[in-house]
Amino acid sequence: MVRGAEIRFVGEVGSAGETSTVRIYPEYCQGLLGVDGYSHLILLYWMHLRDDEENRRTLRVVPRRHEGAPLTGVFASRSPSRPNPIGLAVVKVEAVEGCTLRVSGLDALEGSPIIDVKPYQPRADSVPDARAPDWTLRGPTT
Amino acid sequence: MVRGAEIRFVGEVGSAGETSTVRIYPEYCQGLLGVDGYSHLILLYWMHLRDDEENRRTLRVVPRRHEGAPLTGVFASRSPSRPNPIGLAVVKVEAVEGCTLRVSGLDALEGSPIIDVKPYQPRADSVPDARAPDWTLRGPTT
Repeated sequence: MVRGAEIRFVGEVGSAGETSTVRIYPEYCQGLLGVDGYSHLILLYWMHLRDDEENRRTLRVVPRRHEGAPLTGVFASRSPSRPNPIGLAVVKVEAVEGCTLRVSGLDALEGSPIIDVKPYQPRADSVPDARAPDWTLRGPTT
Repeated sequence: MVRGAEIRFVGEVGSAGETSTVRIYPEYCQGLLGVDGYSHLILLYWMHLRDDEENRRTLRVVPRRHEGAPLTGVFASRSPSRPNPIGLAVVKVEAVEGCTLRVSGLDALEGSPIIDVKPYQPRADSVPDARAPDWTLRGPTT
């Protein structure tokens, strides 16, 4: 029984900071047609520094950036230690310049591989009144 | 230069429909601790029927479920044909029963492998006023 698959890196995070650049590799650049029609995107990236057995076998964490957080399953936290070190960020599009996106709101390390870019569809993706535990409201947003 | 990585399947979609069941494999079940504190989750799943070269080389599509949609890059659409056939759904948690989640809002095929479960954090993930092209507002939400 197959219990895995192969993912391909389609780009990488250039500079990271208040605004970040995301460089899509030339062979995937055609896939950006129409991206400029959206104010926000969902970026999926590979947290490559966590791609090791210790981190990928981690199933419970105490989220350390959130004061008072209890022992929590990785599927109930945004911890980078998880079976698949996939990061997800909803980012604001500042500019699309050829194969490069300039975005804000990306909390990823420079050099992180990009695995997917998806348009943010508020009808499907926005749930303003979603409920989350109190500890998640302290500290950073994820 | 490494241009890819290995993902692991952590569960699969059981029944699909109005409400769907998502079965997390026993070896990953510990990761669910605290999931019941959230009203919504983000599910990442593998669209296994699109995991072939033809679909993974597709970079532009005409989204067929949205009337009047133009030729669009896959990174500006939620097409299942894309370099990495990763599906993303924001789902509502109906129940957590042991290693099984019962959710609504999941548009995935029965048997689709699950690759990640993330808690929905409205502070970071909800952008009610995000802008998307008009054609995305016709037809299904993604």
